[in-house]
Amino acid sequence: MSSTPLSSTDRTRLGRYRNERSRTDRSALYEILDEARICHLGVVVDGSPRVIPTGYGRSGDTLYLHGSTGASSLLAGPSQDICVTVTHLDGIVLARSLFHHSVNYRSAVIYGTPHRLIGDDEKLEGLRAITESLAPGQWDLARRPTPKELAATTVLALSLREASVKVRQGPPSDDAEDHALDVWAGVLPVRQVFGDPVPDPALRPGIPVPPHLTG
Amino acid sequence: MSSTPLSSTDRTRLGRYRNERSRTDRSALYEILDEARICHLGVVVDGSPRVIPTGYGRSGDTLYLHGSTGASSLLAGPSQDICVTVTHLDGIVLARSLFHHSVNYRSAVIYGTPHRLIGDDEKLEGLRAITESLAPGQWDLARRPTPKELAATTVLALSLREASVKVRQGPPSDDAEDHALDVWAGVLPVRQVFGDPVPDPALRPGIPVPPHLTG
Repeated sequence: MSSTPLSSTDRTRLGRYRNERSRTDRSALYEILDEARICHLGVVVDGSPRVIPTGYGRSGDTLYLHGSTGASSLLAGPSQDICVTVTHLDGIVLARSLFHHSVNYRSAVIYGTPHRLIGDDEKLEGLRAITESLAPGQWDLARRPTPKELAATTVLALSLREASVKVRQGPPSDDAEDHALDVWAGVLPVRQVFGDPVPDPALRPGIPVPPHLTG
Repeated sequence: MSSTPLSSTDRTRLGRYRNERSRTDRSALYEILDEARICHLGVVVDGSPRVIPTGYGRSGDTLYLHGSTGASSLLAGPSQDICVTVTHLDGIVLARSLFHHSVNYRSAVIYGTPHRLIGDDEKLEGLRAITESLAPGQWDLARRPTPKELAATTVLALSLREASVKVRQGPPSDDAEDHALDVWAGVLPVRQVFGDPVPDPALRPGIPVPPHLTG
């Protein structure tokens, strides 16, 4: 029930809560970004926040996003501040008190103003990063974008300069006096798993599942 | 690679993409909300978007959020527009073309201005909904909030009136001419699973794991 670990807005707070700390090392940031498949993208539209799930990719210290060039795309307009958040839910923290219920998680929050890629080569590089993040191994397998498809796709690059990583792991942080309670406490682990590939019903016979999907 | 399904801002678009449609029935909304454990909360701070993961709960057509009453909490300030997004990633859609790579997902996006609950009884009702969402079964087990804990907790109620549900399921939507390609196509299913409960190392001996955690 304690929402403080997840509701704080302080990007730099360190170790205020037991088992939780902001991280400043880049490797933790890269790990969180590289392990996830989708992010939540926040933009401001007419003064109000809008948050949508979308794919992304990372290469070095750049995060890539893409969208349709259509007028309805969140990313088709002029440069604007955005926020990209990637979260891994690792466990439900079951404390002796409701107040100290929480979650184990790893999150990365990136702020900045992305710039739109113009040249076909740089757009393809961004799309390659996005594909490798969403579906590793597919870039070298599937048909590459046609000029028309590429023209219909907006690709944005966002610096990872302003990024905040937060991690909470470990058992509940109950108050000392609550340890005497007759209440079970611990963590229910959560993880994301992949199932067996399901072929398109329209798949032509004789095309094997590529090895990168069976690992 | 096709980001259009996830990047659209049009809340009411219907069936523009094969396999994808906006849903208007409440049951789809409830299902998406009730099945997830965390949401992504978007707010505007100094004109810029901020997106953080946090817990939530639902009761009827009300969504509950909570936060610390501390000054650093995103939710401690005056009434403001927020956006709450809940996403289930159900599969990676592997098309014959990179352009039609996508994801199968279910998402709910809720917009509105929440109101802060004041009375202890209504705050407890909100916290019960949040606990039942995050850790079903724990409300009746763990120690209830003290007056001090309750006073330190902000509880917000957000109407589900303005909610948008989007769902994409099914095989890739390749262009007809790409079906002749010698490329495997299909879906890699993704799901979230729970592991076995891990006891707090400080747990007193003889306290069994409650049944609602072993199912």
